Amino acid sequence: MDEAPLVTMASPQIGGQVELTELANGFRIVTERMEGIASASIGVWVGVGARHETVEENGIAHFLEHMAFKGTERRSALDIAEEIERVGGWINAYTSREITAYYARMLGEDVPLAFDIIADILRHSVFDPHEIEIERGVILQEIGQTRDTPDDIIFDWLQETAFPDQPVGRPILGPPENVRRFGPGDFRAFVARHYRPCSMVLSAAGAVDHDALVRLAEAAFGDMERAAAPRAEPARFAGGERLEEKALEQAHYLLALPVPGYRDPEYITAQLVATALGGGMSSRLFQEIREKRGLCYAIHAQSSHHADSGLLTVYAGTGGEELGELAGLVADEIARAAADFTAEEIDRARAQLRAGMLMGLEAASSRAERNARTLFMHGRVVPPEETLAQIAAVSRDRARDFLAGIAKRGALVQVAYGPVAGALPREEIAARLAGGSGAGAG
Amino acid sequence: MDEAPLVTMASPQIGGQVELTELANGFRIVTERMEGIASASIGVWVGVGARHETVEENGIAHFLEHMAFKGTERRSALDIAEEIERVGGWINAYTSREITAYYARMLGEDVPLAFDIIADILRHSVFDPHEIEIERGVILQEIGQTRDTPDDIIFDWLQETAFPDQPVGRPILGPPENVRRFGPGDFRAFVARHYRPCSMVLSAAGAVDHDALVRLAEAAFGDMERAAAPRAEPARFAGGERLEEKALEQAHYLLALPVPGYRDPEYITAQLVATALGGGMSSRLFQEIREKRGLCYAIHAQSSHHADSGLLTVYAGTGGEELGELAGLVADEIARAAADFTAEEIDRARAQLRAGMLMGLEAASSRAERNARTLFMHGRVVPPEETLAQIAAVSRDRARDFLAGIAKRGALVQVAYGPVAGALPREEIAARLAGGSGAGAG
Repeated sequence: MDEAPLVTMASPQIGGQVELTELANGFRIVTERMEGIASASIGVWVGVGARHETVEENGIAHFLEHMAFKGTERRSALDIAEEIERVGGWINAYTSREITAYYARMLGEDVPLAFDIIADILRHSVFDPHEIEIERGVILQEIGQTRDTPDDIIFDWLQETAFPDQPVGRPILGPPENVRRFGPGDFRAFVARHYRPCSMVLSAAGAVDHDALVRLAEAAFGDMERAAAPRAEPARFAGGERLEEKALEQAHYLLALPVPGYRDPEYITAQLVATALGGGMSSRLFQEIREKRGLCYAIHAQSSHHADSGLLTVYAGTGGEELGELAGLVADEIARAAADFTAEEIDRARAQLRAGMLMGLEAASSRAERNARTLFMHGRVVPPEETLAQIAAVSRDRARDFLAGIAKRGALVQVAYGPVAGALPREEIAARLAGGSGAGAG
Repeated sequence: MDEAPLVTMASPQIGGQVELTELANGFRIVTERMEGIASASIGVWVGVGARHETVEENGIAHFLEHMAFKGTERRSALDIAEEIERVGGWINAYTSREITAYYARMLGEDVPLAFDIIADILRHSVFDPHEIEIERGVILQEIGQTRDTPDDIIFDWLQETAFPDQPVGRPILGPPENVRRFGPGDFRAFVARHYRPCSMVLSAAGAVDHDALVRLAEAAFGDMERAAAPRAEPARFAGGERLEEKALEQAHYLLALPVPGYRDPEYITAQLVATALGGGMSSRLFQEIREKRGLCYAIHAQSSHHADSGLLTVYAGTGGEELGELAGLVADEIARAAADFTAEEIDRARAQLRAGMLMGLEAASSRAERNARTLFMHGRVVPPEETLAQIAAVSRDRARDFLAGIAKRGALVQVAYGPVAGALPREEIAARLAGGSGAGAG
């Protein structure tokens, strides 16, 4: 408990002062003090998620995150909620495929209280059987809600189709049969195996005091034994398609191509290319498919990443009769961009990423999230200046080559939900991505 | 064009410096300079929306907002998008029932560019017939998307059922048959009637310079003739119910009670009561219905307002078999709270509203929105301190009396979508809201 922290370093960042301390057992504390801000954002990020589960465990990381709010040795579920809301703050959590985060927002004077609650729910949850029974019902309702939201559920199907029979492809909520089965012992075993100090980061930003948080973290987490958490199985993109007929007004469509993960510097190129393709109103997809043809209301491209894998995904919602035309056009536009992205388009995408990042950094919550995530991905806090320099360094030629490389590989996922009879065969999408379509290009 | 501005006043606010200028023709400019922020948020808020439309016009305010991005005398749709995205900014708009807003986010140095684009699309849109045809398709797709999102479409039905056969009850997107009919002349006539300088506010916050914006506004809007826009028909709550059967996983449920509008100081009491009832994890509805019984994943209460009307609404999603139990419990909890809200619950709701407001004010976009809205609602910029004092002044007794008053009136709206066979009769909900249900309370 009273061992000295091993490492403390400070580095100036745009607008904030970042400090990082690692406790003897590997637990890390990163803070960023922001001037002129009276509130704070604080949380613990844990390097565990659905991709660390076995088939039988699928859904437990998420269920466990729910159970953290259901009572500790000192606090009932109601106490947890009342204590943070009494000071006007709030507490929440999310589970993704490789990270589970528990975080709170509050005025600066209430940071110690928020820390105490977060530490308590992470170290002293009781997994009361009665509370587990109730929470099962809540999660089964959450699964129902996801299924009722077409542009939510299709992203689950996308991940499953891209990475079939792999942990990283499984849904975060898990199947209902697993949710019905988990008991106290399952949660305890999962915590013991995956909630290790080396995979935990306390990250805070805004009106925060680094040294005070280090002392609190040492007291609350310093007694945990140093041990590594199990690694996740590497992702292997397979690709494929899933077309689900349903009586909906729109066909909700996704087309995705495999791109590198966060640990590959090329992930920045993928983000730039996604922005130029469909990141704004001036992007090719928006202009060609919505503005020139009126085929959809929503269309956008995004590049999302895990440590070792990523997907460049185009989403659009359109009518059943327009689905085939839209899907073909999306593929054609990608092929065309791979051949003739202009320097101006790439400049614009760079400006969008740069300004978007700078504006995002004005919020304490974004700072806390970014610092924690870069620590997980790169083992250090990556200063915004470094990311900005990486964005600036992607040339037009690099963007073209990158897009040509992924468009011509033949690896893709196609998902559609709603009136899907008009969907194009996957082979045709692949051919048009490669610049074919009858009138082929290179 | 070179008339002097009539009024300029400055008042200090929490964290920012607010300045307000009114041009000779009634057009107002409000800015709030925030220290330590390098970006800005700027927009023009216009006091027009769906409630200013006739039946035949329903949907035109929203369609017009779309057309603003489809080309001006100087700029094509692509130019508009490219110019703002070239500097990494973005531009967007929304249409509500009484306000249409056009706004942009960008780094501080690009404020003049953003202003120029917004002024251009507001004053010099061309309503090109070809672009109108294309945008019809986009909006028809948007209508389809709304219909595919259960927890979106039910809010349209709620408003229609609460205020039937009135402009304020009609859907913002309008019916497809109207969307198919609107032409250039309709847009021009609507703009001429409703886009008047007295109903327009330029609001900006962050890294902004008031005097520079006043000069720009004078040049761009100073030539508009001073004239009042037509007033909207007052809202008259009627109430009723709408139960729509559909094959969904969940029944999406809304229960709403009429509350005062923004111009009545009691709207603050309504917001406080909604927060205590269902504004967070410690609220009664969350605790009783999700935490104790596991009947839903999402449940929350909110109080939403127009100038002269409002609704205190509870939303929950649950299974078809649980719908009746859930709806009855929501009504019982409201009745119980009207009888026995504790001082601690009201204190907590006050703290939530206060801290939520202070944290919200850290974002330039929230400041710009708030200043514009209070100008519309109250004819002046209401300082946050004043709203905070109003929140602090609502006593426990006042909250109880207020809730008892609306719960016992018998006026309510009930909407359900999905497997709705188990819904309770509206009369039973009314009786339980009034404290009955067999075992009656006061």
